[in-house]
Amino acid sequence: MEAGEGVSGATPTEEMNGAGNLMDFLDEPFPDVGTYEDFHTIDWLREKSRDTDRHRKITSKSKESMWELIKSLLDAWSGWVVMLLIGLLSGTLAGVIDLAVDWMTDLKEGVCLSAFWYSHEQCCWTSNETTFDDRDKCPQWQKWAELMTGHAEGAGAYLLNYFLYVMWALLFSFLAVSLVRVFAPYACGSGIPEIKTILSGFIIRGYLGKWTLLIKTVTLVLAVSSGLSLGKEGPLVHVACCCGNLFCSLFSKYSKNEGKRREVLSAAAAAGVSVAFGAPIGGVLFSLEEVSYYFPLKTLWRSFFAALVAAFTLRSINPFGNSRLVLFYVEYHTPWYMAELVPFILLGVFGGLWGTLFIRANIAWCRCRKTTQLGKYPVLEVIAVTGITAVLAFPNPYTRRSTSELISELFNDCGALESSQLCDYINNPNMSRPLDDIPDRPAGPGVYNALWQLALALVFKIVITIFTFGMKIPSGLFIPSMAVGAIAGRIVGIAVEQMAYHHHDWIIFKNWCRPGADCVTPGLYAMVGAAACLGGVTRMTVSLVVIMFELTGGLEYIVPLMAAAVTSKWVADAFGKEGIYESHIQLNGYPYLDVRDEFTHRTLATDVMRPRRNDPPLSVLTQDSTTVEDVEALIKDTDYNGFPVVVSRESERLIGFVQRRDLTLAIKTARQKQDGVVSSSVVYFTEDAPQLPASNPQPLKLRRILNLSPFTVTDHTPMETVVDIFRKLGLRQCLVTRSGRLLGIITKKDVLRHMAQMMNQDPESIMFN
Amino acid sequence: MEAGEGVSGATPTEEMNGAGNLMDFLDEPFPDVGTYEDFHTIDWLREKSRDTDRHRKITSKSKESMWELIKSLLDAWSGWVVMLLIGLLSGTLAGVIDLAVDWMTDLKEGVCLSAFWYSHEQCCWTSNETTFDDRDKCPQWQKWAELMTGHAEGAGAYLLNYFLYVMWALLFSFLAVSLVRVFAPYACGSGIPEIKTILSGFIIRGYLGKWTLLIKTVTLVLAVSSGLSLGKEGPLVHVACCCGNLFCSLFSKYSKNEGKRREVLSAAAAAGVSVAFGAPIGGVLFSLEEVSYYFPLKTLWRSFFAALVAAFTLRSINPFGNSRLVLFYVEYHTPWYMAELVPFILLGVFGGLWGTLFIRANIAWCRCRKTTQLGKYPVLEVIAVTGITAVLAFPNPYTRRSTSELISELFNDCGALESSQLCDYINNPNMSRPLDDIPDRPAGPGVYNALWQLALALVFKIVITIFTFGMKIPSGLFIPSMAVGAIAGRIVGIAVEQMAYHHHDWIIFKNWCRPGADCVTPGLYAMVGAAACLGGVTRMTVSLVVIMFELTGGLEYIVPLMAAAVTSKWVADAFGKEGIYESHIQLNGYPYLDVRDEFTHRTLATDVMRPRRNDPPLSVLTQDSTTVEDVEALIKDTDYNGFPVVVSRESERLIGFVQRRDLTLAIKTARQKQDGVVSSSVVYFTEDAPQLPASNPQPLKLRRILNLSPFTVTDHTPMETVVDIFRKLGLRQCLVTRSGRLLGIITKKDVLRHMAQMMNQDPESIMFN
Repeated sequence: MEAGEGVSGATPTEEMNGAGNLMDFLDEPFPDVGTYEDFHTIDWLREKSRDTDRHRKITSKSKESMWELIKSLLDAWSGWVVMLLIGLLSGTLAGVIDLAVDWMTDLKEGVCLSAFWYSHEQCCWTSNETTFDDRDKCPQWQKWAELMTGHAEGAGAYLLNYFLYVMWALLFSFLAVSLVRVFAPYACGSGIPEIKTILSGFIIRGYLGKWTLLIKTVTLVLAVSSGLSLGKEGPLVHVACCCGNLFCSLFSKYSKNEGKRREVLSAAAAAGVSVAFGAPIGGVLFSLEEVSYYFPLKTLWRSFFAALVAAFTLRSINPFGNSRLVLFYVEYHTPWYMAELVPFILLGVFGGLWGTLFIRANIAWCRCRKTTQLGKYPVLEVIAVTGITAVLAFPNPYTRRSTSELISELFNDCGALESSQLCDYINNPNMSRPLDDIPDRPAGPGVYNALWQLALALVFKIVITIFTFGMKIPSGLFIPSMAVGAIAGRIVGIAVEQMAYHHHDWIIFKNWCRPGADCVTPGLYAMVGAAACLGGVTRMTVSLVVIMFELTGGLEYIVPLMAAAVTSKWVADAFGKEGIYESHIQLNGYPYLDVRDEFTHRTLATDVMRPRRNDPPLSVLTQDSTTVEDVEALIKDTDYNGFPVVVSRESERLIGFVQRRDLTLAIKTARQKQDGVVSSSVVYFTEDAPQLPASNPQPLKLRRILNLSPFTVTDHTPMETVVDIFRKLGLRQCLVTRSGRLLGIITKKDVLRHMAQMMNQDPESIMFN
Repeated sequence: MEAGEGVSGATPTEEMNGAGNLMDFLDEPFPDVGTYEDFHTIDWLREKSRDTDRHRKITSKSKESMWELIKSLLDAWSGWVVMLLIGLLSGTLAGVIDLAVDWMTDLKEGVCLSAFWYSHEQCCWTSNETTFDDRDKCPQWQKWAELMTGHAEGAGAYLLNYFLYVMWALLFSFLAVSLVRVFAPYACGSGIPEIKTILSGFIIRGYLGKWTLLIKTVTLVLAVSSGLSLGKEGPLVHVACCCGNLFCSLFSKYSKNEGKRREVLSAAAAAGVSVAFGAPIGGVLFSLEEVSYYFPLKTLWRSFFAALVAAFTLRSINPFGNSRLVLFYVEYHTPWYMAELVPFILLGVFGGLWGTLFIRANIAWCRCRKTTQLGKYPVLEVIAVTGITAVLAFPNPYTRRSTSELISELFNDCGALESSQLCDYINNPNMSRPLDDIPDRPAGPGVYNALWQLALALVFKIVITIFTFGMKIPSGLFIPSMAVGAIAGRIVGIAVEQMAYHHHDWIIFKNWCRPGADCVTPGLYAMVGAAACLGGVTRMTVSLVVIMFELTGGLEYIVPLMAAAVTSKWVADAFGKEGIYESHIQLNGYPYLDVRDEFTHRTLATDVMRPRRNDPPLSVLTQDSTTVEDVEALIKDTDYNGFPVVVSRESERLIGFVQRRDLTLAIKTARQKQDGVVSSSVVYFTEDAPQLPASNPQPLKLRRILNLSPFTVTDHTPMETVVDIFRKLGLRQCLVTRSGRLLGIITKKDVLRHMAQMMNQDPESIMFN
């Protein structure tokens, strides 16, 4: 993958020989022609070209017989079939994960006597108790201490529950990290940085394999259940992409073409977000905005289909027991007012600052993990963090429960039947209470108590999340980020609500908040805060707002959400353009050419190309004067992935580009199968080899593996144009010429290196655009 | 715009001279360098490069002083300011148009006595009548016959009303077509085909001008009010784009750069759809899926912002008087059942067939208009069609009213208070009637009557819409298409409902439709039908479903809508890949390179490039041996837009490309201002002109206008790759070389011509992909 990495821009032989010949050539003698090595970059143009060939062949065959026609129709529909399968499997897996997480999270606290495989909520469904509070305490569900000692209350029971809670957490996280370590190291993390890299055209073998799928699914359940500050959303995208990759292998159209495979993976990512949040449109936009690199319209439709099927499958499984698709279903009854934009924008600023803090601290910690001894004890690290999390989390009711339950409670508006602490308002006894439209009331002691606990939970979540993300277990950060924002938002919301109640004669409240009216919805503030914090970390905007909009199902709150999301993005961007995923990509050094970075420097192709001024000259082949021996020596001495072919070393006129892999395979095969090819045979890349006297060794004709349409730019081409070309056409390398003479080569790595260099020299220049 | 059209791939001098010099050069001596002529194609790479230069200059200046820093910040924010302005203006215009259309539509039938500028609905708002039916007949509102003769009923009054209805319609349409003819010929049609073409990089001066904006707004009101079968959605997109263009002229960043201007226009298109339907997310996706060519992520965010501001402005104006953002607000109370997918898919098939029929018939009629005498009498045509429409529409209550009211009624579920004919069901007197959950009931005579009238309306709409779309007045086809689908859907819906009621023992109904249950919602069928028909005509899928989803505000019905939209697309695609907009683009011969057409033929660059085998050789300049005279002769003799520059005619090594426009201007300026430049002066494109003896005329150095990085491909490059490059990089032309020798040139026109040729040769090959 060093300088000179290269794959031809179009299949070698198609120009000369016709498709049939090409296919034979690809299928038979060199089985690996057209595949890539691990950790290499694919050539999008070439993949596209290969797919067109395949398609052309099928179309022409389809006229021959009925059977071929049916086969061609099946081929045309295979894309939709794959989408259907991805939707079904990822929806099912998401449902299973949800159910298992529910059960295992509750297992940390107690067990259902009537059926041990029931979660707390399922256990108490059939209970006769009427209010929510009582139903939570249904007799079928017993806490561990009660079951073991018979006492449900008291210090002893509390300590025993505490101890068992921590033990279960440690057990789950130990299992998770061990499984990851032993069976599938790629199953750790959120997976989104790697998927972004893969979608941009990089090969990481096994990253989306069956093993990873299985282990990630199991360990995700364990990791979430252990109570660590992590979410299942990012890993679900990874799981869905593994499903996509699995089904790709059913159809040679996708399994044999890395470009087509990536179209499927883009759609699978959409399905993943769709089931993570129950937001199909948001999923598609997430895939488009955040994950995908190449997203043609056809992929848009298919992604949408896959996302819908997945959401529908999940709804059929009904893991939340409420026929709702969405993770956090909320319904508010009050509109928002213009003056509220001020706290919403402040929440946006908070989100941006949190995003910056989180990214910097997390990257610093991950870098520290990479470079110091710490990285050598991943199991110990996970155990330690789990221990600390569990010990600190148990005493606070807002951190003890699962994070998604917490978010759900924070988002909710206080209805009349709500029994939570957060809804402990002082009611006016003279007032008739309609079910939905409850006016603003003064806060009771429960609310003040809750505020303290929430403030502690906020600090705890902020700190622990920084250390959790990046450990060797599956971990997403949508949920923790949203939790931080939701807590902050709820606190602000309650503050504004109480201010409006106690000071409704202030000018700012006078216009919209009469006494006795329901003017402030603290739950909405929590939602806006969650959007702001998620936006600050990931720098999503449109997909974020759409996901939030799908959660509430109303256009009413799109302006507050948008205001917070955009503010948070602006604030966070002011401190550094990169979101958490891009930062992790950079940290891991993946060759990812971000479409969002604008390259604005005045360098030219000639400044970036190899060889540099003092380097040895470019390794080239000549079209009719290199011997087999020379070629073999060149292959042995260099590690370039391909070699330009020129007319002669004197004229330096470029005629094509040949790939190292193809060259090696061709020579090996020729030596084995073709008589008379010896070390002193001359390699010909010309159309016809000359008639040589019989005494000379037989020539080796290799025009078939020569790419006759290599991509070239002139040495005076500005680098911004070169970057644009690499990005849009998905090149691996590009040759540099001047007046028809070959001067050098630029590879994707060279471009990335140059961009990084330029960025560091002049970080200011990217701040305003 | 013939072969040889060419603009350099990067600004000419930047490589050599530095930005300051470049700007002087561009601003001072040749004021028109860098602009394009009317009906020419822009070069996206060059525009981008120019913007980067401008940006670089501002960034470097911003370090000089506080004032420059503020200027650079203003420049960075100007994009958002433009979006805000577009949102505000297009929202306001949409509100004004809605109000005016309401009033003028009602004016055809009568007038409000209390205030003549009130529409029927506004007039009766303050009325005391309680039921909807009575309120419609409030005394303040008088029909023309009643006002003029005093008799509200009877044959005479009917005929007088009929006559005045037709007269008003004729007056409105005559005014509309006259205004368009006299003041702004570009204001006719829907505008979307032209906007697609403009966004793909074509220049049509005046198409988005102030005049067009004004006239289109006024005539749109007239055309819609005249009762013709047309909608305001497409034209609203055009109006919004005109707003976008207007505000571009405020900032040189956008007004002087055709590429940046197109980013703004993409966002404006989103704002247009956003206000047309009250669907901001749908608007953004429409812009992305249907209209835009180049849609970077930055544009996505800004489009979303503009769409939101526009929707919010419209809501503040509140033209529908219900605080709702959306055009057709519906709320259904019944879920849908799996078995209903069958009629939904049938509606999809109907939609696809209607789409095919409409496109073919409309294109045939438009072609006929273009080629025969008919096209010479546009005013007469409009008058005739209006007359026929009005005469046929008045007797049928479903066609008499405005099309959007019709759709609104068809979408609505029959509530308990509904008084329309369509809700004339036979009630069971023993049954208590809850407000919302009304069980299925047998249809009464009103429903059967309505069915007949709807069937007639369906035929009428289908036929008249074909003749209406494409006349010389503003006309959108979203609303007529949706009306056709809604009528068909409602008919199917009522049929299924009655079947389920009368035969609830049939196997297909048994599982989900108990007697006395509310199982079928005919309004939902109308909505699904509308989506299917709109999809068949425009081939939108995702944006369509999202728009429909925003109209209802619930994820519940996304599967029926998706099923119908995808079926309709598949059915329509089987008869021809092109939607109505692409068909009109082709009909008008715009140079539009569709991103969706896949080019799958086996031709090579050498087959497409000019000169062809028997043509005269390519017109080239040499770097140091052409005289001013020669250049002038070449410019005079050819109409190519640019000329390649080679080292010498013998070697044919390419060194650059020079633009005709720049060459003409440079020579003109040199002859005027530079002493010693005469006809026999030698033009030098080399870095240094040699020292010539004093006797020779002074040389003319033109390296500054030479583009040193022209885009090249080899003659063996497959055309599919070339097409991809043209599409993704937005090139105007590309030079063809073999082993460093210049062979020919391929322009965007050549590519389009070749694609059209290939398509016609082998139309089957594009059917499956």
